[in-house]
Amino acid sequence: MHDDRFARLPAPPCYAVIFSSRRRGDASDGYAEAAARMDALVRAQPGFLGVESARDGEGFGITVAYFDSEDAIRAWRDHGDHAATRQRGRDEWYAGFAVRVAKVERAYGWERADA
Amino acid sequence: MHDDRFARLPAPPCYAVIFSSRRRGDASDGYAEAAARMDALVRAQPGFLGVESARDGEGFGITVAYFDSEDAIRAWRDHGDHAATRQRGRDEWYAGFAVRVAKVERAYGWERADA
Repeated sequence: MHDDRFARLPAPPCYAVIFSSRRRGDASDGYAEAAARMDALVRAQPGFLGVESARDGEGFGITVAYFDSEDAIRAWRDHGDHAATRQRGRDEWYAGFAVRVAKVERAYGWERADA
Repeated sequence: MHDDRFARLPAPPCYAVIFSSRRRGDASDGYAEAAARMDALVRAQPGFLGVESARDGEGFGITVAYFDSEDAIRAWRDHGDHAATRQRGRDEWYAGFAVRVAKVERAYGWERADA
């Protein structure tokens, strides 16, 4: 049975946007709703391939979104609702973040047979 | 003040190993000790640049380790203690994992000025 927390990607190459962030301790208004909206929106983007995300109890999180091209990443960056939400992130929700855009060159995975 | 959960990387290019994993609900013996040992070991590898990691309450986690070359990634993959610990991961700790190796082409970050 496939664990749907893992992205199912086609064979490389593809492109990854690695977004790491630290939430602020305060000012959580609207964050969960915005995160859910962005998750749905990114999945609807042309060229979207998959996304994986984890955030720990200290508010540090990593989200990796995969796309089939750099053009798809640029279009997602320039999407109006995404850009406005990023601005709210700086204004309200995050203490800091980092973005790295990378070309995936090889990949492999493993799932327990008896899981 | 720099948040040390974020890797401080030199300007691109560099290489990223994106490791996502799901812990099993049981069989946690030795996991925390092994994770701490691997964290110390990877930081000591030639060509290591930085690492970021988060695991959520459902046992899904993402670790991204950055290196200055593909040779450094291969040497880390082939390190004896790392290889043995990966095997323990398959035998005991993980329900599944995925590895993607990617070349970082651009990067930017932001930290709150008043944090």
